[in-house]
Amino acid sequence: MIEFKQIGTIYTPFKSREGMPIQSNGAKGVKGKIVINKEFSPGLKDLTDFSHIIVIFYFHKSIGFDLQTVPFLDTEKRGVFATRAPKRPNAIGLSVVKLLGINKNVIDIENVDMLNETPLLDIKPYIPDFDIHKVKKSGWIENKTKALDKIKSDTRFK
Amino acid sequence: MIEFKQIGTIYTPFKSREGMPIQSNGAKGVKGKIVINKEFSPGLKDLTDFSHIIVIFYFHKSIGFDLQTVPFLDTEKRGVFATRAPKRPNAIGLSVVKLLGINKNVIDIENVDMLNETPLLDIKPYIPDFDIHKVKKSGWIENKTKALDKIKSDTRFK
Repeated sequence: MIEFKQIGTIYTPFKSREGMPIQSNGAKGVKGKIVINKEFSPGLKDLTDFSHIIVIFYFHKSIGFDLQTVPFLDTEKRGVFATRAPKRPNAIGLSVVKLLGINKNVIDIENVDMLNETPLLDIKPYIPDFDIHKVKKSGWIENKTKALDKIKSDTRFK
Repeated sequence: MIEFKQIGTIYTPFKSREGMPIQSNGAKGVKGKIVINKEFSPGLKDLTDFSHIIVIFYFHKSIGFDLQTVPFLDTEKRGVFATRAPKRPNAIGLSVVKLLGINKNVIDIENVDMLNETPLLDIKPYIPDFDIHKVKKSGWIENKTKALDKIKSDTRFK
């Protein structure tokens, strides 16, 4: 087993797993904040100079996992590693959000798709040269993300 | 504490933390493979239809952390959350690599920047609509990634 610790908490308007946006691009304009435990505040130095950050968090409401699952944007069973579903062998979540500003240990963010009170594991700067890649194919999800504005989460991963 | 498990192992040509590439874009053409524990193989279904994957792993050689650190591509101390340095409060690594092919529980990948025998935590599909973002600013690293072909890791994070 590998042990990690909660280093902060993510606050969002989403109190229930139903009706949540699918990914940060389905959450345009939705504001939230990250409160990092005070002892880690010195680690936030220079972060405000980035417009986007990668937030790594714990899907704390996911109990157990399915190796194959029907994603929100699809109707067929897919391998869990070919999806972003929360019920995974390791319940690690990843979202890229807009950074609005930092005040001491509070980070204001936009385009949040996490559940309220999600435990924070890590923050990394989003760096175009590291994180933007030209893909040749994007599998089952190709052409399915147009529905992001309309489709919200349901109870399938409870 | 939050517990995760090693679900596989990443094999790369890098046996030592010195002289490693900085990020997958500094590792162009370097091949490696992920061997996922057999019980998780069904979770790989449909993944081969993606050209890029997000690999989440454990920086297993990182002991302890520094809240401020001088990144490989820089000369000034930065907050650790504004860097991709391995010595972090939670030693979680993230790389986007090219997927070359999958044979049972073995995934061939390219542009690998991890240490050999790195423990795998999760794989997610890289999805342009979720993962490509137009940044307004990218802080201290702006204009510093051109050196990626030349700069390799050194011992500063030992």
